[in-house]
Amino acid sequence: MYDTGNSKAPFCYAPIGTIHTPFLDIAGMPIQPVGARGTRGTVEIFPRYREGLHDLDGFERLILIYALHKCTDHLLTVIPFLDKSPRGIFATRSPKRPNAIGLSVVRLISVEEGTLNLEDVDMLNGTPLIDIKPYVPAFDACPGSRCGWFENVAKNAGTIRSDDRFR
Amino acid sequence: MYDTGNSKAPFCYAPIGTIHTPFLDIAGMPIQPVGARGTRGTVEIFPRYREGLHDLDGFERLILIYALHKCTDHLLTVIPFLDKSPRGIFATRSPKRPNAIGLSVVRLISVEEGTLNLEDVDMLNGTPLIDIKPYVPAFDACPGSRCGWFENVAKNAGTIRSDDRFR
Repeated sequence: MYDTGNSKAPFCYAPIGTIHTPFLDIAGMPIQPVGARGTRGTVEIFPRYREGLHDLDGFERLILIYALHKCTDHLLTVIPFLDKSPRGIFATRSPKRPNAIGLSVVRLISVEEGTLNLEDVDMLNGTPLIDIKPYVPAFDACPGSRCGWFENVAKNAGTIRSDDRFR
Repeated sequence: MYDTGNSKAPFCYAPIGTIHTPFLDIAGMPIQPVGARGTRGTVEIFPRYREGLHDLDGFERLILIYALHKCTDHLLTVIPFLDKSPRGIFATRSPKRPNAIGLSVVRLISVEEGTLNLEDVDMLNGTPLIDIKPYVPAFDACPGSRCGWFENVAKNAGTIRSDDRFR
């Protein structure tokens, strides 16, 4: 039996690999995988974790969880790339979050001895990878969910690029 | 311009709040939100982060990223709850991952002054919350994605409960 706890102690995670993409600068990047359709990237998994990649090749998409490693501080209110109004950070996907963790659903093309070949990558080159989860539609796909201020603008994520506001 | 990097230094994240659920023990729990339909829970956000909750009330679902705080070691190969065969940990949603981070898509019922009222919670009571992201179907919903060994068994996640194999 576990008690409720109220721990504020930090949790530390060592990268399991590195994400390689064509994006070398934080400005001018796609802001979501939907804006990076077909963009090729790779993940290099460090040797000690490669055994954990078995059975991954049957999946069409992966959820990558990664460190937004160039974010050094955070904001609680931001004007997102897709909007002109200030929004609470947790109602956005902006990188300047209290815990700078990114999440992207990417397409898995192939797995070769410690390297994942991907499409739809929207991360900065050199991004440290924290976890890989298989994308399972029965768990992760909720089409039609109401999505607040994104409702009319999410579609613009296919074309809008980042600027340097979150540098 | 950022170089490729190959950092193995850990990234540390301080919880932004605590998740409260009816699940007091790691055995006998739902293994995914799909097995916790209608189960009520709350998130208490620590006061210093509450400003970041603005605009969240328009969202039907949230992605919660949290510390699997009772996992103290990891396995690279596991027999998942839904299967009888050993699988690479990154092809599973099992908690004994190299970086013990959990991800659940939950239903947001209401937001009250620092507390989120939720449904479909599948976490242990007292779980430290690391991040909240709004669920945006245009970014996150990929129905029909091939999902490897889950293909014929994901549906069973609605009824199967955990045991103590990952304690």
